Amino acid sequence: MSNFFVIDGGGTKTRGWLVKSDKSIMDEGTAGPSNVARLGAEGLRIALSELLADCPAARTCAGVVMGLAGVGRERERELAVAVAREFWPHTPVHVVTDAHLLYEGAFCSGERGILLIVGTGSIAFYQNPHGHEFFRAGGWGPLLGDEGSGAWIGREALRHCLWEGEREELSPFHAALLEKLKVDATHDIITKVYREDFGPTRWAELAPLVFEFAEEQPEVMAILERAALELIDQVERLIEDVPQSMALVPLVVTGGLWERRAVLEPLLLEEIQLRQLPLTIVEPAGGAVEGGLVILTR
Amino acid sequence: MSNFFVIDGGGTKTRGWLVKSDKSIMDEGTAGPSNVARLGAEGLRIALSELLADCPAARTCAGVVMGLAGVGRERERELAVAVAREFWPHTPVHVVTDAHLLYEGAFCSGERGILLIVGTGSIAFYQNPHGHEFFRAGGWGPLLGDEGSGAWIGREALRHCLWEGEREELSPFHAALLEKLKVDATHDIITKVYREDFGPTRWAELAPLVFEFAEEQPEVMAILERAALELIDQVERLIEDVPQSMALVPLVVTGGLWERRAVLEPLLLEEIQLRQLPLTIVEPAGGAVEGGLVILTR
Repeated sequence: MSNFFVIDGGGTKTRGWLVKSDKSIMDEGTAGPSNVARLGAEGLRIALSELLADCPAARTCAGVVMGLAGVGRERERELAVAVAREFWPHTPVHVVTDAHLLYEGAFCSGERGILLIVGTGSIAFYQNPHGHEFFRAGGWGPLLGDEGSGAWIGREALRHCLWEGEREELSPFHAALLEKLKVDATHDIITKVYREDFGPTRWAELAPLVFEFAEEQPEVMAILERAALELIDQVERLIEDVPQSMALVPLVVTGGLWERRAVLEPLLLEEIQLRQLPLTIVEPAGGAVEGGLVILTR
Repeated sequence: MSNFFVIDGGGTKTRGWLVKSDKSIMDEGTAGPSNVARLGAEGLRIALSELLADCPAARTCAGVVMGLAGVGRERERELAVAVAREFWPHTPVHVVTDAHLLYEGAFCSGERGILLIVGTGSIAFYQNPHGHEFFRAGGWGPLLGDEGSGAWIGREALRHCLWEGEREELSPFHAALLEKLKVDATHDIITKVYREDFGPTRWAELAPLVFEFAEEQPEVMAILERAALELIDQVERLIEDVPQSMALVPLVVTGGLWERRAVLEPLLLEEIQLRQLPLTIVEPAGGAVEGGLVILTR
């Protein structure tokens, strides 16, 4: 049985698994970020070198699948293929987005549905089983969108504190946020965001604080309720692409924020019920490895 | 009669007027930006030098009022005073925010009300006549707020086009926006915003296009309707600071976007009526010059 190398590359971390077609994992490796759009060819080159240092046997594998952040456009995808060719000149290489790889894994065993990824950013996908169309909603980054994501929640936390500052109603959450930011007064938030290092790429760091205070402060819980609303908005935008014949659309949720599933899931379910959407939250059938094998054997 | 020098310094332009206490203007000058928070002491020094080159007689005036962007906090205010001292070592110098100067001008002749400034950014003010309290709402900049402002409208325009791109429903507005941005496809907006020069400080450049297409495309008009809603939100946040004895609170609107008053005013009025707010839009009693004289003679 041949070995295959499946790579899941995101904005902060890249992982690689050397697998057989029966899904058994022979070896694995980790590396830094590999977002081609942000780091260019050199960033991917470094990540792949690191992965192959961990998994030297992957150099002679029979096929490679790379699911990478930042290859949504043709130009970046071609760049990624060119870099992969430097490492595997004679091996079939498949390059897809990291979201696509997760999608293939999540729905590898049956009916297709909607995948919602909610981490630092947020994005939703649906792939029509009868075609090759891949529909997406959201994923516009922290300046233009990523509604309901960790970065979005962090920004809403900052806005909530500025609002409290205007009203001079300073809550325990307000104090905790200022401490986390290492600033003395509400108005320093503005300086911190615009003139220091705490810009959009770091807002997601505040999301854990929001979850921590949500139980005791209703207005902090309200931030998460709005996040759930925004996330279901993205999912709802895709429902019209799903064939009407499907009575109940499976929804798989994944991503870093899903570690807070105990809090998030009831909020999502409430929003789904409120809108009477034909959605049911299900477990993913598989992850990146399973997705990679689907792509290799198609 | 003595001469006074009144300076209105914003993020893009600084103006100065040499005036007598009867409000007659003897001379005036213009200079570049003078935002102390952004450009520091040197930026203000350059702007003042330019103003005094235009108005040399201002060097020997009897009093100076500087209304400057970016002096909301004590540290920046003190910096501005120190720079002014270099030019006028023995003359009384008053430093206030540019918004404060406009407020004093707008309400120089009677009852105080709410001032809404809507340009690249947005902010609302109310000053209690019985105290020195100066209440503000908004003004958090393009990343965290400035709801309803030119930058906000520009960002919503970008988001609207991304949304249309997802739905593959490309309107004439969509085509015009891509042309304005000099990009070929919807998805290039993401690259333009995150990797090129078209960040938050430039979003306001798109606002004119929104006004241009609002009449013919209801969903573009909807952006302006939401902007009006956000602006009235800011004003509403201040109403609770206004004494209950005031039956109808005067609202003065000013700023670059108010050049589109023909479109904006009906939207604001509709929102005010919908919420049954005790607000009446009035003309400002005066501008920066009148505001400066109020501050000098207090």
